[in-house]
Amino acid sequence: VRLGLTSPSRAEAFADGVFAVAITLLVLDLKVPSAITHGLGRELLDQWPNYAAFVVSFLTIGIIWLNHHSLFDRLTVVDRPLLLLNLLFLLSVCTIPFPTAVLAASLRAGQGEAVGAGLYGGTMAVMGLFFALMWVYAVRRRLVPRELVPGEAVAGFLARFAMGGPIYAATIGLSVWQARWSLAVYAALALYYAAIPTPGRPRHALGHSQRGPGEG
Amino acid sequence: VRLGLTSPSRAEAFADGVFAVAITLLVLDLKVPSAITHGLGRELLDQWPNYAAFVVSFLTIGIIWLNHHSLFDRLTVVDRPLLLLNLLFLLSVCTIPFPTAVLAASLRAGQGEAVGAGLYGGTMAVMGLFFALMWVYAVRRRLVPRELVPGEAVAGFLARFAMGGPIYAATIGLSVWQARWSLAVYAALALYYAAIPTPGRPRHALGHSQRGPGEG
Amino acid sequence: VRLGLTSPSRAEAFADGVFAVAITLLVLDLKVPSAITHGLGRELLDQWPNYAAFVVSFLTIGIIWLNHHSLFDRLTVVDRPLLLLNLLFLLSVCTIPFPTAVLAASLRAGQGEAVGAGLYGGTMAVMGLFFALMWVYAVRRRLVPRELVPGEAVAGFLARFAMGGPIYAATIGLSVWQARWSLAVYAALALYYAAIPTPGRPRHALGHSQRGPGEG
Amino acid sequence: VRLGLTSPSRAEAFADGVFAVAITLLVLDLKVPSAITHGLGRELLDQWPNYAAFVVSFLTIGIIWLNHHSLFDRLTVVDRPLLLLNLLFLLSVCTIPFPTAVLAASLRAGQGEAVGAGLYGGTMAVMGLFFALMWVYAVRRRLVPRELVPGEAVAGFLARFAMGGPIYAATIGLSVWQARWSLAVYAALALYYAAIPTPGRPRHALGHSQRGPGEG
Repeated sequence: VRLGLTSPSRAEAFADGVFAVAITLLVLDLKVPSAITHGLGRELLDQWPNYAAFVVSFLTIGIIWLNHHSLFDRLTVVDRPLLLLNLLFLLSVCTIPFPTAVLAASLRAGQGEAVGAGLYGGTMAVMGLFFALMWVYAVRRRLVPRELVPGEAVAGFLARFAMGGPIYAATIGLSVWQARWSLAVYAALALYYAAIPTPGRPRHALGHSQRGPGEG
Repeated sequence: VRLGLTSPSRAEAFADGVFAVAITLLVLDLKVPSAITHGLGRELLDQWPNYAAFVVSFLTIGIIWLNHHSLFDRLTVVDRPLLLLNLLFLLSVCTIPFPTAVLAASLRAGQGEAVGAGLYGGTMAVMGLFFALMWVYAVRRRLVPRELVPGEAVAGFLARFAMGGPIYAATIGLSVWQARWSLAVYAALALYYAAIPTPGRPRHALGHSQRGPGEG
Repeated sequence: VRLGLTSPSRAEAFADGVFAVAITLLVLDLKVPSAITHGLGRELLDQWPNYAAFVVSFLTIGIIWLNHHSLFDRLTVVDRPLLLLNLLFLLSVCTIPFPTAVLAASLRAGQGEAVGAGLYGGTMAVMGLFFALMWVYAVRRRLVPRELVPGEAVAGFLARFAMGGPIYAATIGLSVWQARWSLAVYAALALYYAAIPTPGRPRHALGHSQRGPGEG
Repeated sequence: VRLGLTSPSRAEAFADGVFAVAITLLVLDLKVPSAITHGLGRELLDQWPNYAAFVVSFLTIGIIWLNHHSLFDRLTVVDRPLLLLNLLFLLSVCTIPFPTAVLAASLRAGQGEAVGAGLYGGTMAVMGLFFALMWVYAVRRRLVPRELVPGEAVAGFLARFAMGGPIYAATIGLSVWQARWSLAVYAALALYYAAIPTPGRPRHALGHSQRGPGEG
């Protein structure tokens, strides 16, 4: 008998709320120029690192949400350790507006880009780590049933997923040399994460009532 | 067999959260006057462009939400490309507080109105484009069943919907000449979008359990 | 045949999100003193109008949420005009952090209190008006079934509810004379609204599955 | 006959929203250094109290959410007094970003730490009080059925839970002597709260349909 088991639905609702707020707070780093001295258009264009960082972080959070969504779709039940792992994962998600703003500021100032990129890539790597830990824990404790998600599919998924870590680390070096291209690498990584198929099938595939067209 | 198909419900929950946060963050551009030198009432009245832009953007986001709600009500299933389109659509929704603040600032400063109107109208036009793309994709991939939404109804809907694009572009010209009236055009466009009936019928009309009075 | 009828659930989710964000954004008006010159405790105490306004606005939004909750619990279906009324109602809810900050600033500055109280009471009165309009519309269009909510119960409810309007207006006069007590009147009004019982019974009372202990 | 009984689901949704927004707003106290004079890395490191306070408050709110989740999982029905208690509880949750920012600022300034710790611990103690009151009320009014939650289990839970109060008070004294360690005590308390098992079993354990593997 394990205590503290509940259905994943309210944890999903809480995570959805955190994702939605974190992704939307990113816009607060887009600021109206305080003085319009060189023309509004020119001053807005000077903020390009803020727009680029906004778009990259938005896509990254959004794609993390897609992957979180797919993971929770495969859970039939959650326990307290998973909820705590989920909380640490959400902590890293909530932090993202801060490294986003720091990276944009360092790109605009033309100094500290390696620090900015290190903070940004480090936050993303920590987030990826907690996400991978949730998968490992969920599989080990059979919170995802074997018939839905075969173990070897998870191993392949995690192997592909783990590629992100060294790439985030490498962008610190890149940022010393060509700072603005590190943002392009982050964007490419987000799209890479979007393209990894989640292993197994969602829990509603167990029953027949919610099956969609062409599925199964 | 298509992978990644899930029910629309969690994507709806996430979108609802993003809409709710984006629409509420608009209030952060209404600021308490820092010094009360000419009387509080006078200083508050000087901020009229901020109030007007707040109301127009609120109604626009709210009406987009209504239309998004109607679209998702017609989906029986969602796949990953649709979720990515939805993410790009939400990116444009989340951005709205920024062009709203820029437009209000340019109207108060009495300069840069064309830039402000261009940024505002451009954001809205991009948002409309992604919304239309979701419709087209959902119809082509049969994520909305034919028996719910006939193809020619969608074509008529998109034709009416597409009227928004040139009108948003035209307000840039209007803003050079009479900047404050561009806000009135944006408000009128929001109401126009509210008045276009969504094609077809919601998915619960397939069954009989959730049918409301007078429906069907 | 009426078009655009849907179930109230996604409108509830959107409204819950807006309420949750608006009520939580109130905390952003509680600011850390920028310089600690007279001791932190003293400087924090000087901000009492911000704390008082925070608590009063929080309770008001929270109690409006309770009443909104009760109204939507009685709707079996919603149509597009109700969703638009709901949107205008939520517009007034989202605005509340602004008059809250203005009222607190005027109380701290010791000037402009009548303007601050007028803006605050006016926002609340407009919100009450839209809430009442939703009730009237829902009853007229039979979005709440007669067997759940008798017409005369609604009339009694709206009569009690309408008392708020003149009281909000009267606080403008009070604020000229004794500004800080206007906040106490606003708090009392919030509690008064909490004490008015919602007419009729929730929709799940129609069936028997969700009936709670002691109900009906 | 008791009026105003409804299902807990919409109150849960509202609370989830408030928790999600409050926990995410914490990031707004992490600020980009305004001038990069001593190097970005150095200036970021100087902000360590803000990071520490961010993490501690995030974990605290997250763990409160877990406990709130467990409580509401045991309610079969809610009434208006419980909703009002829940509102006062959420008021204290929403306030947390403010004492978090004050405590971080006092640690950075090296003065006012006892005031900062008092405000922080006081907010947490008030929150714990309202949470305990919800449990007491729910048990007395039988909103949690006896067969799910035995009375003596609740008494043991509340006794362990009440330990937090004096410890929060003691950190005020600690903060005069060794201010930065008070944050470590707050973190330890959050983990302590996470480790107290919620008494009884969730309501879905009454039926058999939602039972997870290994449960019961």
